[in-house]
Amino acid sequence: MRQFINKFLCVSVLVFFYVSDTNAAIDRVDLIVRGGAVVTMDKDFRVIERGAIAVRGNRIVEVGNEVDIRRRYVARRYIDARGRIVIPGLINAHTHIPMTLFRGLADDLALDEWLTKYIFPAEARNVTEDFVRAGTRLGLVEMIRGGTTTFCDMYYFEDAIADETARAGVRAVLGETVIDFPAPDNKTHEAAMAYTTRFINKWQANDLITPAFAPHAPYTVSEEHLNNVRRAAERLNAPILIHVAETKKELDDSLQNKNASPVAYLARINFLSPRVIAAHVVHINADDIRLLKQSGTGVVHNPQSNMKLASGIAPVPQMLTSDLPLGLGTDGAASNNDLDMWEEIDTAAKLHKAATGDPRVVTAREAFAMATINGARALHLEREIGSLEKGKRADIVIVDADAAHQTPRYNLFSTLVYATKAADVRTVIIDGRIVMLDRRLLTLNEPLIKRQARAWRARITRSLAAPSNVSN
Amino acid sequence: MRQFINKFLCVSVLVFFYVSDTNAAIDRVDLIVRGGAVVTMDKDFRVIERGAIAVRGNRIVEVGNEVDIRRRYVARRYIDARGRIVIPGLINAHTHIPMTLFRGLADDLALDEWLTKYIFPAEARNVTEDFVRAGTRLGLVEMIRGGTTTFCDMYYFEDAIADETARAGVRAVLGETVIDFPAPDNKTHEAAMAYTTRFINKWQANDLITPAFAPHAPYTVSEEHLNNVRRAAERLNAPILIHVAETKKELDDSLQNKNASPVAYLARINFLSPRVIAAHVVHINADDIRLLKQSGTGVVHNPQSNMKLASGIAPVPQMLTSDLPLGLGTDGAASNNDLDMWEEIDTAAKLHKAATGDPRVVTAREAFAMATINGARALHLEREIGSLEKGKRADIVIVDADAAHQTPRYNLFSTLVYATKAADVRTVIIDGRIVMLDRRLLTLNEPLIKRQARAWRARITRSLAAPSNVSN
Repeated sequence: MRQFINKFLCVSVLVFFYVSDTNAAIDRVDLIVRGGAVVTMDKDFRVIERGAIAVRGNRIVEVGNEVDIRRRYVARRYIDARGRIVIPGLINAHTHIPMTLFRGLADDLALDEWLTKYIFPAEARNVTEDFVRAGTRLGLVEMIRGGTTTFCDMYYFEDAIADETARAGVRAVLGETVIDFPAPDNKTHEAAMAYTTRFINKWQANDLITPAFAPHAPYTVSEEHLNNVRRAAERLNAPILIHVAETKKELDDSLQNKNASPVAYLARINFLSPRVIAAHVVHINADDIRLLKQSGTGVVHNPQSNMKLASGIAPVPQMLTSDLPLGLGTDGAASNNDLDMWEEIDTAAKLHKAATGDPRVVTAREAFAMATINGARALHLEREIGSLEKGKRADIVIVDADAAHQTPRYNLFSTLVYATKAADVRTVIIDGRIVMLDRRLLTLNEPLIKRQARAWRARITRSLAAPSNVSN
Repeated sequence: MRQFINKFLCVSVLVFFYVSDTNAAIDRVDLIVRGGAVVTMDKDFRVIERGAIAVRGNRIVEVGNEVDIRRRYVARRYIDARGRIVIPGLINAHTHIPMTLFRGLADDLALDEWLTKYIFPAEARNVTEDFVRAGTRLGLVEMIRGGTTTFCDMYYFEDAIADETARAGVRAVLGETVIDFPAPDNKTHEAAMAYTTRFINKWQANDLITPAFAPHAPYTVSEEHLNNVRRAAERLNAPILIHVAETKKELDDSLQNKNASPVAYLARINFLSPRVIAAHVVHINADDIRLLKQSGTGVVHNPQSNMKLASGIAPVPQMLTSDLPLGLGTDGAASNNDLDMWEEIDTAAKLHKAATGDPRVVTAREAFAMATINGARALHLEREIGSLEKGKRADIVIVDADAAHQTPRYNLFSTLVYATKAADVRTVIIDGRIVMLDRRLLTLNEPLIKRQARAWRARITRSLAAPSNVSN
């Protein structure tokens, strides 16, 4: 009996130590993605061939190899990524999301004709809060399906865009347009400033939404109004989105009217800063690149839109050499005509090889970085997103790697950039929440959204057939 | 009773007339595709919104609106294309299909380094008949999945490629390489000529395969050997495929060594003719375009490969203005890195807008024509394929039109070119035979093919790690 008691005590002690040791080492988390090749996009571009990611709440707790993560964490939920590639959510750093409703409305026209005969009248006659909500939902479906977890938008009724985006569980920097013309929502500069101030105050604490000012361009917003925006943005600590040097005409007009390139003009009026995100930035020279770099301005390259609208080819290799925070964007669907970041990455990697005659410029890894960590830098969000690292928000995308068009696989970045398509995206997690699982959308009603988009098409088509004085 | 007999006679007569009328009008066919928007690509670019196509054997019997076709034909089998888009099968007019096994082997390198350190050694150490068969099957999976029904190939062991292609039910123009270096299959010019002659005799009567000569390029095949090829091709009535003016270096060398551009040199030696299909054709001038046009040479544009290898940008707007028979190709997967004609079409439509600064050049419809009817013209097969017209081969592709990225739809050509992806292809019919139905491949074992491709990757990787004197 005594022997038995001794044995019992001995075993109990062992069990106690074992359990307490286990308790000490094993941490509880909400989600573990395990088994895929994890492309971290950290500063060493580390790829973990059989990796895993532990997530608690909306943040990444740990990234490592599968065995280590299994030893240290138990999760409420597991997602199996074996045989797949796990990447940071893609960042579409410049778009106009509601313009999905104008996708294919008009193409292959001179810029003037395209704008004045189609886009401006279509916007003047249709852009309401309802339009913006319908177009945003359509764009959200497309972006989630393609693995985009963050987008940066410039449009009207951004408060409605924020509402739809947050409901869908997608991350965004949303810039309300400030322009020296009556806009669909705000008719005066003062109204736009008041709207945007309210908008920023309302959303600034949201985990997903970063509200911002979006003065349209240096040639459509006066110096005085740009200064107003800058001061208000400083006061509210909000980003500023702006189109810069998109066309040759903009450059020529700026040189003539302001005796400076668009970038130099913005630098002269102290507009550039680490809160500014400049889109397009096509017609720039070495001085402009230096000014952008010195000021900490984020820059967004939009290769497919620049090609389709014949805007020109941005000097991306030079921008990369200068280590500008350079992201990638699709622009609006009217000038692309999709929100597909995979095609944008592929095009970014190829276009500059053709433009420079050097096949070594813009490598696959550099192009992929533009859509992830450097997109985050362009949006000044690199401390929160853009890579799969401990402490960052859990924006995680799982990509199939077994399609015929991806086979065989010699190099991960080559497979991702030159061979992977939006349709290969399988599962999307944003801020720790699964928004698409095995291609099934969990936060949006896709059939209804497409039906509503088709109804808007009919209405937009009718509006353009009507005499212009009726609805303009 | 008499009244009854009268009635009976009367009804009988009516029934007789009805039945005989029906018999006269109703024709039996094998297959009807019905209900989709049929993009015919005929000379008027007619689109039939609720169209149908009747197929008997391997040919199209009738294309028309659904109601008319239903009134006139009954089929053994119907395919419902309602809500979808029905297009002629896409034509990939220049590729090297077995090179799918080198997809992503090396990228972003100077052309010399890419060729001499990777592609040439990889080919020298691996290209056998087995390799070619495995790579062909992989490429066939990818092409069928993306709606490509005809491809034009230049490689080695083309007899094996023909065998795999015909088994899979895919149409192809297959050119056996003739080059003044020892090739993986034929070590001398004489051996290559003998092989190709046998190859052409063997396959020329096949419904799917058009066997051809493929002298590699004007700078890798001597004038004497080019003349041999031309004479043999005339005797055998076979096409001739050749790379022409792909790089600036080729142009410069040709000007120096032959005192003529590559095109002018080929014209001078009477090589150009309506049996020639010239790929790339990047570095050409107005005189070259005139020579190509006058000779009836087919031309193939390869925008993504030309970008990725930094070869340059072909003067496509000028070629279109001159109404050259201009098709579109992906080139091999090592320099693309996929065989995706949808991305090639999209790029063709955008690249030249950027290159010329004019957003009106290469319209969506022109780009789509390059992948269909003008691709057929480039291959000199426009009487058989390239459009959905009575009498042509039944190469028919049904495309989903309801994805978020295609919504809404204002213009069919815009939707097809700027928004549709390979993954939207639903059903593929080649020569009257269904080879993919609702994305299910019916003629190829995809899992096995991918497994074999991965085994080849391992072998290729090992071969490049080995000392070069062992296997070179």
